[in-house]
Amino acid sequence: MAVNLKPLDDNTLLPIAGLELSVAEAGVKYANRRDVLVMHIDKGNTVAGVFTQNRFCAAPVQLCKQHLDAGVQIRALVINTGNANAGTGEEGRQRARAICAALADELSCQAEQILPFSTGVILEPLPADRIVRALPARKPASWAEAAHAIMTTDTMAKASSRRVSIGGEPVAVTGIAKGAGMIHPNMATMLGFVATDAAITRPVLNQLVKEVCDPSFNCISVDGDTSTNDSFILISTGKSQAPLIDSTDSADYQAIKAALLDVATELAQAIIRDGEGATKFVTVEVEGGRSVAECKAVAYAIARSPLVKTAFFASDPNLGRLLCAIGYAGVNDLDVDRLELYLDDVLVAHQGGRHPDYREEQGQAVLNQAEFKVRVLLHRGAAQARVWTCDFSYDYVRINADYRS
Amino acid sequence: MAVNLKPLDDNTLLPIAGLELSVAEAGVKYANRRDVLVMHIDKGNTVAGVFTQNRFCAAPVQLCKQHLDAGVQIRALVINTGNANAGTGEEGRQRARAICAALADELSCQAEQILPFSTGVILEPLPADRIVRALPARKPASWAEAAHAIMTTDTMAKASSRRVSIGGEPVAVTGIAKGAGMIHPNMATMLGFVATDAAITRPVLNQLVKEVCDPSFNCISVDGDTSTNDSFILISTGKSQAPLIDSTDSADYQAIKAALLDVATELAQAIIRDGEGATKFVTVEVEGGRSVAECKAVAYAIARSPLVKTAFFASDPNLGRLLCAIGYAGVNDLDVDRLELYLDDVLVAHQGGRHPDYREEQGQAVLNQAEFKVRVLLHRGAAQARVWTCDFSYDYVRINADYRS
Repeated sequence: MAVNLKPLDDNTLLPIAGLELSVAEAGVKYANRRDVLVMHIDKGNTVAGVFTQNRFCAAPVQLCKQHLDAGVQIRALVINTGNANAGTGEEGRQRARAICAALADELSCQAEQILPFSTGVILEPLPADRIVRALPARKPASWAEAAHAIMTTDTMAKASSRRVSIGGEPVAVTGIAKGAGMIHPNMATMLGFVATDAAITRPVLNQLVKEVCDPSFNCISVDGDTSTNDSFILISTGKSQAPLIDSTDSADYQAIKAALLDVATELAQAIIRDGEGATKFVTVEVEGGRSVAECKAVAYAIARSPLVKTAFFASDPNLGRLLCAIGYAGVNDLDVDRLELYLDDVLVAHQGGRHPDYREEQGQAVLNQAEFKVRVLLHRGAAQARVWTCDFSYDYVRINADYRS
Repeated sequence: MAVNLKPLDDNTLLPIAGLELSVAEAGVKYANRRDVLVMHIDKGNTVAGVFTQNRFCAAPVQLCKQHLDAGVQIRALVINTGNANAGTGEEGRQRARAICAALADELSCQAEQILPFSTGVILEPLPADRIVRALPARKPASWAEAAHAIMTTDTMAKASSRRVSIGGEPVAVTGIAKGAGMIHPNMATMLGFVATDAAITRPVLNQLVKEVCDPSFNCISVDGDTSTNDSFILISTGKSQAPLIDSTDSADYQAIKAALLDVATELAQAIIRDGEGATKFVTVEVEGGRSVAECKAVAYAIARSPLVKTAFFASDPNLGRLLCAIGYAGVNDLDVDRLELYLDDVLVAHQGGRHPDYREEQGQAVLNQAEFKVRVLLHRGAAQARVWTCDFSYDYVRINADYRS
């Protein structure tokens, strides 16, 4: 089903010095499935993260924030699928702590030095004992195997790598992600982990994680549902020979940011390409707004509209639904007579109505493609925003009506 | 498909003295279909309306607002289906004006005394000439026939009546509505027309129309899409023997308001019962909020979530999706440990997690019903809100992927 998404090739995924991956079968939800991933990081690293804005943020997210805020040296990440440990109250926090404690024991560190992550069904007690029992039996894993281990309703594993030169020295960036449903910024049931062997100070990494997440993972929407467990983590192991990046005002910062953003964007787009039931990959660009916020509001009104998304599924250039969504996006003083609407390079609407030269066959040709762009020019300012989304198909309903059974 | 919605019985729909209904076949989109309705009102009436907040508000909506603001005596409403005359710019306004002018000629009044309404596909030129040609050939119609004439993707016609005593005199209230898709408050592709033979001054009617629309038509959501054409109109013919209602501070005002609200609520609920692809009718009640706005935000987060709605369709008591939606509703200081979540009378979640006594069979029993209630107690104030919605089924996708073909 995934739209233009290639199977992973382990040979293209760069190892990150100072970071070891291993997986285990805990039987959280299904037997005989690798459902636990551990990322073990050598000392001397820095780690930063951004997390869901959902008020029902899951127990592991609460612990991650505590552990990162404590300023201790992080030594490992432990991720399980099959259960989100969300909506589980104090008991959920205790169970997440028990997993951290068990892994810390083995690694001879404190529980606070472990970051826990969970994804899967909400409101069910996490079988932490099974995860604790499975941890010692885990086996070394490649990046592709790691990407497989964190999948839920994903149909394909998601990983990406880049090499970049920092101060004349080669640096590697590799990341994995999972997504599929409950995807909306700030953030989705989306886990993203991107690691580099570059050396980056914690304050700089804290800034980088926001600047990288915002135009990538925070610009995607499958169904408008912001999940309880979303997390995006940057890991800097510092094991390359490149000079330490200790300022955001440097060419080295721009270089590592560009590489991290490339990887994060490819992963974020992969989540949309593999969106639940997706048959189309759609880029929504809004330009000429007074603020980024209003451009995003218009882009997300389009990306969230079930009517627009079912029309995409049907390859139906039902432009009225697009204009309707723009109209209710909440830009209250929007002058609809000034805006222009394009499908790829085809000008379809202007002056509050259909362009006289537009022919339905042109819109049809654009929508027949597996990938296309919706472009809205507001002509009221210089701000812009870009969002990626997918269509809304029978399979979205099937997947989400069947998910727990 | 409609959930617990009975076919109309013309015998239960009260005539409104001073109001004549007639229908015509204009062939706007389909041949041999009554697609134009005229409501001719005797002099001495008052009329008030509320309209969509969509910035792409349709040409007829723009004219309705102008004509109502002009303060002239309204003499007729003309409604067509098959084409929304929205996103049609200046030409769309001219075509709507041409229809008003033609009907005004026949009724010996001014074009400004006619209110035009359109519903159907957006961004296609309205074949106004066909409507103008069809107007003289229209035939008298009953309320049930009128309700049929304004249907689009509705599977059943929607009408409702009440009788009420004002100052000891009998007064009738009868209304019709159409809806089905693109339904979200402020408002939906929803047309609602409610008439009474009570006499009500224009200032009082202007207040009434808001007070009646707000807890009825503005509390429904099928798919979260606010349409370009939504209109709700109150007509007071003043032909009953009841005393004039010229103040909002009177028992008569409360009595007529209650009757109008009854009719409007039944019509609004009928739109949800007949929502595109609906198999469930769900009431979402949020209590104990600090403001009505935050209660509505929580209720609509639930009512709009595709994940919640597909779970309803599957009769799957996937409570995690409900908590997740509450969590991202935007109530930023919400303490999730204090809230309680009920399905009908079953307490399913409290203290941030599942209630220990809750058994899945209980939730399953509630969701197996065609109608049930989701009740959220926020425990942080005295405000409340109620919203009606439906589930999200394969048929929603089918209907909206096929709608234009």
